[in-house]
Amino acid sequence: MSPATSKRELDHPARHEIRLEAVLHALSDPVRLRVVGELAAADGELSCSYFDLPVTKSTTTHHFRVLRESGVIQQTYRGTAKMNGLRRADLDELFPGLFDRILQAAALQGARLGH
Amino acid sequence: MSPATSKRELDHPARHEIRLEAVLHALSDPVRLRVVGELAAADGELSCSYFDLPVTKSTTTHHFRVLRESGVIQQTYRGTAKMNGLRRADLDELFPGLFDRILQAAALQGARLGH
Repeated sequence: MSPATSKRELDHPARHEIRLEAVLHALSDPVRLRVVGELAAADGELSCSYFDLPVTKSTTTHHFRVLRESGVIQQTYRGTAKMNGLRRADLDELFPGLFDRILQAAALQGARLGH
Repeated sequence: MSPATSKRELDHPARHEIRLEAVLHALSDPVRLRVVGELAAADGELSCSYFDLPVTKSTTTHHFRVLRESGVIQQTYRGTAKMNGLRRADLDELFPGLFDRILQAAALQGARLGH
């Protein structure tokens, strides 16, 4: 982790600090899997308040932190909004093709289970 | 889970009961990732005692149980040995290409970190 230079800047692992185990753990939760699916579909940044998740606000914050600390997303303050974006370039460089396969697997499972 | 018919038969999820989240969770641990890597390399069944893991026997048993209950491996008693094999056909049918990408990502990371 690089130290945050202000309260308004959030800690992110550098690319070389991202670990496969942490990425898989981050994606092993249905809420977090749904968040990354929506980010992938949006193909850009989305604010935390965009997501209508079936969990409390503090649990939502926790899920976004797990995604950020594992290196799956970057979070940036823009004014009062916390914006979220996938770290596609970093993940694709470290683990070629993995992220797309996980998204595809999630979509197939969603279709199978009627979600 | 189908109920075990005897103590010698272990519970496994049927293919349609396997969930992506559980598979990713099972593979989010370095010891379990190493076990599946060795099983993939062996391309067949290996006994639990084959693995020389840096954890206690009870932790080893726990890791194998997580892999079995998530649907990543099947465990079968053969005499006194508990044999382990990957459920490649089930995983590849449910999540095409995912398992190979995870194995590749683990190998790339191992090479990068000098493991």
